[in-house]
Amino acid sequence: MFTHIDANGDANMVDVSKKNDTLREAIAQGSIILNEEIIKAIIDNRNKKGDVLPTSRLAGIQAAKKTSDLIPLAHNLNLTKIEIEFSIDNKNNIIICKSLVRCLGKTGVEMEALTAVSVALLTVYDMCKSFSKNLIISEIKLLKKTGGKSDNWSKS
Amino acid sequence: MFTHIDANGDANMVDVSKKNDTLREAIAQGSIILNEEIIKAIIDNRNKKGDVLPTSRLAGIQAAKKTSDLIPLAHNLNLTKIEIEFSIDNKNNIIICKSLVRCLGKTGVEMEALTAVSVALLTVYDMCKSFSKNLIISEIKLLKKTGGKSDNWSKS
Amino acid sequence: MFTHIDANGDANMVDVSKKNDTLREAIAQGSIILNEEIIKAIIDNRNKKGDVLPTSRLAGIQAAKKTSDLIPLAHNLNLTKIEIEFSIDNKNNIIICKSLVRCLGKTGVEMEALTAVSVALLTVYDMCKSFSKNLIISEIKLLKKTGGKSDNWSKS
Amino acid sequence: MFTHIDANGDANMVDVSKKNDTLREAIAQGSIILNEEIIKAIIDNRNKKGDVLPTSRLAGIQAAKKTSDLIPLAHNLNLTKIEIEFSIDNKNNIIICKSLVRCLGKTGVEMEALTAVSVALLTVYDMCKSFSKNLIISEIKLLKKTGGKSDNWSKS
Amino acid sequence: MFTHIDANGDANMVDVSKKNDTLREAIAQGSIILNEEIIKAIIDNRNKKGDVLPTSRLAGIQAAKKTSDLIPLAHNLNLTKIEIEFSIDNKNNIIICKSLVRCLGKTGVEMEALTAVSVALLTVYDMCKSFSKNLIISEIKLLKKTGGKSDNWSKS
Amino acid sequence: MFTHIDANGDANMVDVSKKNDTLREAIAQGSIILNEEIIKAIIDNRNKKGDVLPTSRLAGIQAAKKTSDLIPLAHNLNLTKIEIEFSIDNKNNIIICKSLVRCLGKTGVEMEALTAVSVALLTVYDMCKSFSKNLIISEIKLLKKTGGKSDNWSKS
Repeated sequence: MFTHIDANGDANMVDVSKKNDTLREAIAQGSIILNEEIIKAIIDNRNKKGDVLPTSRLAGIQAAKKTSDLIPLAHNLNLTKIEIEFSIDNKNNIIICKSLVRCLGKTGVEMEALTAVSVALLTVYDMCKSFSKNLIISEIKLLKKTGGKSDNWSKS
Repeated sequence: MFTHIDANGDANMVDVSKKNDTLREAIAQGSIILNEEIIKAIIDNRNKKGDVLPTSRLAGIQAAKKTSDLIPLAHNLNLTKIEIEFSIDNKNNIIICKSLVRCLGKTGVEMEALTAVSVALLTVYDMCKSFSKNLIISEIKLLKKTGGKSDNWSKS
Repeated sequence: MFTHIDANGDANMVDVSKKNDTLREAIAQGSIILNEEIIKAIIDNRNKKGDVLPTSRLAGIQAAKKTSDLIPLAHNLNLTKIEIEFSIDNKNNIIICKSLVRCLGKTGVEMEALTAVSVALLTVYDMCKSFSKNLIISEIKLLKKTGGKSDNWSKS
Repeated sequence: MFTHIDANGDANMVDVSKKNDTLREAIAQGSIILNEEIIKAIIDNRNKKGDVLPTSRLAGIQAAKKTSDLIPLAHNLNLTKIEIEFSIDNKNNIIICKSLVRCLGKTGVEMEALTAVSVALLTVYDMCKSFSKNLIISEIKLLKKTGGKSDNWSKS
Repeated sequence: MFTHIDANGDANMVDVSKKNDTLREAIAQGSIILNEEIIKAIIDNRNKKGDVLPTSRLAGIQAAKKTSDLIPLAHNLNLTKIEIEFSIDNKNNIIICKSLVRCLGKTGVEMEALTAVSVALLTVYDMCKSFSKNLIISEIKLLKKTGGKSDNWSKS
Repeated sequence: MFTHIDANGDANMVDVSKKNDTLREAIAQGSIILNEEIIKAIIDNRNKKGDVLPTSRLAGIQAAKKTSDLIPLAHNLNLTKIEIEFSIDNKNNIIICKSLVRCLGKTGVEMEALTAVSVALLTVYDMCKSFSKNLIISEIKLLKKTGGKSDNWSKS
């Protein structure tokens, strides 16, 4: 059932007025497929002042705070923690981005974690697109979700 | 070479002051892997008031206009056209989202097209996540780019 | 007495620090006067993919979330429910828009409900203005307000 | 014909890529029905530091700049002039708000002028609602439009 | 120790998930050095409709609400009170701006108070820059901070 | 004369509709007074992954793009270049921030350059405030301005 769609078939924001505040957490992940030259440039640059990944981390953190402005039916929430972490798979020329978001609130923070990952990867793309136009953002998914009435969930 | 990183290794916005205004266009694409039940629900609902895809289309269009607010080193541009189109691959339970963005400006609109696709797919995710948490956003990439000094480019 | 204006006559944000969180609700309404041709086009289009009203509903929902960014002295609040509903008076060629907003907070949500209605109607205007420039947005008003220290209120 | 709705019935942004930049102007108007006590308070306060109307004027000006963020299919434009003017009809306890917006661009600024008036009046509402909940925002309409390919237009 | 920088040296948002909500308050101050002619014009204009300072006060109040959008690692908070006050030192041709911000939350509001002062002073600058380009914004600092786990603090 | 204040004494946006597009540039500067311990920590951290200054640089760049959202009567402009540079005066424990902004437009970019510096310094403050609450942001001023009808100007 689409919880965002009411009995008339109209899209409206789900009512969470009577839910309790509980500690919510979500972990999401995604990746970007680059090429050998770019991976090398990112690693080299990192040894100096390391720009691509810190810039992308900040973009992801700021985007998480804007989730309710981007996703039409998302509730605005006061996030208590946003963390973004990159790892480089230099065998496959892939950068993996993982986000963790926490909030004490009435609804889950999956969309915030997914938005953080998406915008962090878009920023990696932006900063690497002068090398190649064949970059691919891929496998953006939820890994784990805790808090709220439903059972905790982890990707199997 | 990272065009966003200057000689000191610092991230700064590229100078486009002396570039001419030309008609820029970019086409991007991405997809979301759902499941049979969700695809069926989207198609059924579409026959009534069709909410998931129109809502996601609007979210993508609005996100394209916010690209320079999301991507730290992106220039703000006055887009002249944003179009988003979905197609349903109901054999594989995938929705494909394609965006086209145009602008008369000094710099390309690839990031705007990619941002439109990303946020449109995040919105599909948001509206379908009550069915399943195993959704995956995938294969976000540029398909075509025209305008500007560099040659026109299409994904081969 | 203007509660937004302090003893010096300066506009400042009212202090709600010591108010309790209670469930607040506000219902607002407004209308737009179109013409026969437009009303018919909206109804016809609705039978297909129904664009004008769903688009305007989303615009109103998103605007409610931005109220504190639009109204200078409004407090930012985490809304728990936003609902927008249209009804068509095709005898008088009028579309009526009603909004309901809820929040568990320290101050009322009247402005959020009124902002939702205003922006939803502006969006109807935008999508119909190619038919006629003689459209009129009218009768935006509060219908009901509950929660908080003051008595519940309904328009008589 | 709905220019925002394409051949498939989907809402998309109109393509203005090939339109010329011309000087566009729009004048809009709206009003808010208050009561005698409030009108008197506004006039009295105005003689001191005059807060309600200046605050509302600024809110309207800032809202005009955010039109493309509020109206989903509006183009973002660089406005070159925004002016808001209030007049008080103290026989009928009404405040009338008029806006004028100018832009050198590819599309008209009607929505910007109407948004300016709407948000200015919502701000008057916000600042006067402690007096009465029976305020009504009314008669928001376009008065004049010049520039662009279509003929100049004035409300008859 | 940089609390915004984690064990890996990466900038991430501090986790406040387990902190209690307490009443937080911060008072900040800053000033702008103008010249005799401008100070006189502000005072004279104030006697009529008083524009520079009311406009700047509103800009500061609105900026406080946007702090988490401006400062990358700031948490978004629902402020319960924002107050801005100007005093004119017409011996030294200086305008002093003081802000007070309150919030019931898990983290302090120093950045909100400092942002309010900074943007209020930038707005004074904007409105006075036609007189002279030699204006200087100066001495932006925290005066007082209460609430939270750390001791209350006042500038000595 | 206050150019933002019209003949009635009301604050309105200056009309730049008939001005030509010319290349505008502004350079601004400001500083933050820290202490020896913080300066040392910033320098040390910089040798690793260098977080405080890159984070603040990005915050300043993004703020420049939001100037018209922060300063009520500023025009929205499409900036073509934003650059932020820090220098450390470790004798006096001061960090100096300089910004350069360019735009091809109808009005100057002084406010954009000053906003970039202000928000970059506020971000330095935010990231260093765990060390001390006695930080002072100071001497924010314009250094140079070229383009437009008025003569070029440099701080003497």
